[in-house]
Amino acid sequence: MKDIAIYEKQSFGQKLGFGRKTALLIIDFQVGFTSADVLGGFNINQAIDNTAKLLNAARKAGLPIGHVRFATANNGRDVGTFGDKVPALKTITEESPEAQFVESVMPLPTEYVSVKRHSSAFFGTNFAAWLAYEGVDTLLITGCTTSGCVRASTVDASAHGLRPLVVTDCVGDRAEEPHHASLFDMGQKYADLITLDEVLKEIA
Amino acid sequence: MKDIAIYEKQSFGQKLGFGRKTALLIIDFQVGFTSADVLGGFNINQAIDNTAKLLNAARKAGLPIGHVRFATANNGRDVGTFGDKVPALKTITEESPEAQFVESVMPLPTEYVSVKRHSSAFFGTNFAAWLAYEGVDTLLITGCTTSGCVRASTVDASAHGLRPLVVTDCVGDRAEEPHHASLFDMGQKYADLITLDEVLKEIA
Amino acid sequence: MKDIAIYEKQSFGQKLGFGRKTALLIIDFQVGFTSADVLGGFNINQAIDNTAKLLNAARKAGLPIGHVRFATANNGRDVGTFGDKVPALKTITEESPEAQFVESVMPLPTEYVSVKRHSSAFFGTNFAAWLAYEGVDTLLITGCTTSGCVRASTVDASAHGLRPLVVTDCVGDRAEEPHHASLFDMGQKYADLITLDEVLKEIA
Amino acid sequence: MKDIAIYEKQSFGQKLGFGRKTALLIIDFQVGFTSADVLGGFNINQAIDNTAKLLNAARKAGLPIGHVRFATANNGRDVGTFGDKVPALKTITEESPEAQFVESVMPLPTEYVSVKRHSSAFFGTNFAAWLAYEGVDTLLITGCTTSGCVRASTVDASAHGLRPLVVTDCVGDRAEEPHHASLFDMGQKYADLITLDEVLKEIA
Repeated sequence: MKDIAIYEKQSFGQKLGFGRKTALLIIDFQVGFTSADVLGGFNINQAIDNTAKLLNAARKAGLPIGHVRFATANNGRDVGTFGDKVPALKTITEESPEAQFVESVMPLPTEYVSVKRHSSAFFGTNFAAWLAYEGVDTLLITGCTTSGCVRASTVDASAHGLRPLVVTDCVGDRAEEPHHASLFDMGQKYADLITLDEVLKEIA
Repeated sequence: MKDIAIYEKQSFGQKLGFGRKTALLIIDFQVGFTSADVLGGFNINQAIDNTAKLLNAARKAGLPIGHVRFATANNGRDVGTFGDKVPALKTITEESPEAQFVESVMPLPTEYVSVKRHSSAFFGTNFAAWLAYEGVDTLLITGCTTSGCVRASTVDASAHGLRPLVVTDCVGDRAEEPHHASLFDMGQKYADLITLDEVLKEIA
Repeated sequence: MKDIAIYEKQSFGQKLGFGRKTALLIIDFQVGFTSADVLGGFNINQAIDNTAKLLNAARKAGLPIGHVRFATANNGRDVGTFGDKVPALKTITEESPEAQFVESVMPLPTEYVSVKRHSSAFFGTNFAAWLAYEGVDTLLITGCTTSGCVRASTVDASAHGLRPLVVTDCVGDRAEEPHHASLFDMGQKYADLITLDEVLKEIA
Repeated sequence: MKDIAIYEKQSFGQKLGFGRKTALLIIDFQVGFTSADVLGGFNINQAIDNTAKLLNAARKAGLPIGHVRFATANNGRDVGTFGDKVPALKTITEESPEAQFVESVMPLPTEYVSVKRHSSAFFGTNFAAWLAYEGVDTLLITGCTTSGCVRASTVDASAHGLRPLVVTDCVGDRAEEPHHASLFDMGQKYADLITLDEVLKEIA
């Protein structure tokens, strides 16, 4: 990134670190994002494999865990203009195969689950309220896509007063350039970028 | 963008067009974003000049107009982790010179105004409620930065059921790559990209 | 109400009327609210019968229709302190008999549906976004309880810029005094109080 | 309340108690609510006097303190249908005498302040985000009116996962019946009712 100097000069990119209590968020690792023929592509499947490891460690560490997936309950009307912009979204109903969580990162009955209709895990869900109730101030963010739902959730996590930590090996996108561009923006403005290994050491 | 084919294959990037009633949103064209020594840079000042033309036309056409600016009312505490990530934000108090609207795009007393503490014009404001009350379904989006507050507002406009139209000559960023990367993402997922000339013809 | 004079003097209780486009909202007419042994009581079952008539008329008139019900997806953790205050709520899981819509007001697949975890139909749902997408500005409000979820939804409908019209024969509560007290407050501050007959004439 | 038995049978009205960290919220103790000729009446002025004592104690105890007041920034358009229902609200501009905080409960520059356009302290503000950033899980609620902004804020505090504690001597209304009816509802469904003396002992 050739323009990095202006970010440094303007004080962007400081480190947040871990706070008082950490939760794990997994976004849209559902069947429809595992195939480039539907909504997947590039490095998403690798990110799912890495996240399965993190999920396992988070459960051992007793972290609150939240899972969100995308689906429409209303033939696409409840997805609004997002569905008009990307018509494939209108076909992903709550019961469709594409809407089901991937087996390796399947929620347990005690874990938080929301079906969302838009990009952010916070929009139209009570995810923020659940985090407040659990006393969480730090959010490990995993899922897909980096430039879509991961980024929208990261921006909202910041706005909701949380410390967003984006786990770089555990987020994936359908294309490489948007993946890297959004990691850069998130790391400068909203979130710490942290590797899976660093997280595993911290929460062990 | 070398990966554009996968977006096309997956149905991204359809056109929304204008709807029933259009409003204009101007984001963060405030003094602190006019200088690269504070939070500005690259093409922001040109975007302000173009937006002044659009504002003039929108007033003539009788469009509802909303203005938002960023500031803290509480020594930066109310900016949360966003201020910890970018400490310069904590110094922009409501009364500071950096928080004041730029003269050429100054609001009229009858126009909607909010001070916001985060990226999105929708977060922590009643902008969405005002748009609903005005009967607006289409939002012309201008302001800065493309990869920050413009993008966050565009994602939220989509989630709120609106048609977001990003006016490409009227949005600016402190650096070139993030500007173009966010235009691409917004155009594929959430918004139509539209030029100032196209808008001027439509609303005349 | 002996204090009504002060409300009149202070300009409360003006009429809103119908606007551009009307939708119908039905709140929490689910099995658990049909019995005083669970969460029901007083006039709720009569309100359900009346609402079935309104629903039928609204479908004939082509109004957008939204249904919400209360349930927890997470053993009550996602209900937060609301569940600590009223522990019976924690047992109403999404699949429980108490969480299912009452037969006479069952949604059609094309109608908007949300499961909510709190009182307001707007909180933690994308109901407001769906209304915006449908171009709705006027909301007929039915359901239970008058002093709980109906009132919370009415307050939020007002805040979201809509015209809330509470259909007095179609809302019910578990106890009489709170029912009447909340009707008074809503009629003075947020909503028009309107009878089923008046609505049927208007939308016919 | 003759119907109290059904609330007890259905498990309503359990106690929440204090949690990990407590904040104080003061709602709409502004000049316009001190006179029955504008928006005041009944016991509001007594509630202000009591709240001044609580504010003093809260500052000594180092509690985070939030102040909200009602005003329009836009000639009443940004108040939406709330202003159509209660036209007096449209005249309370941000700079008007009626919109200014009462002297005895004036905020300090380090305390959280928001101007709101609707009933709830949470709606169209970033109050919830600030509470999350401060690590607050328990909210002492004071202000006016009990049946209006206090109740709306209490319902939202519950929905946001917080423990709402309504300080009964520190909330007031323009009329007696709505004051008592809303205290009953809040105590059964959303919040603990607690006296000023009890709070002073707890936070001392």
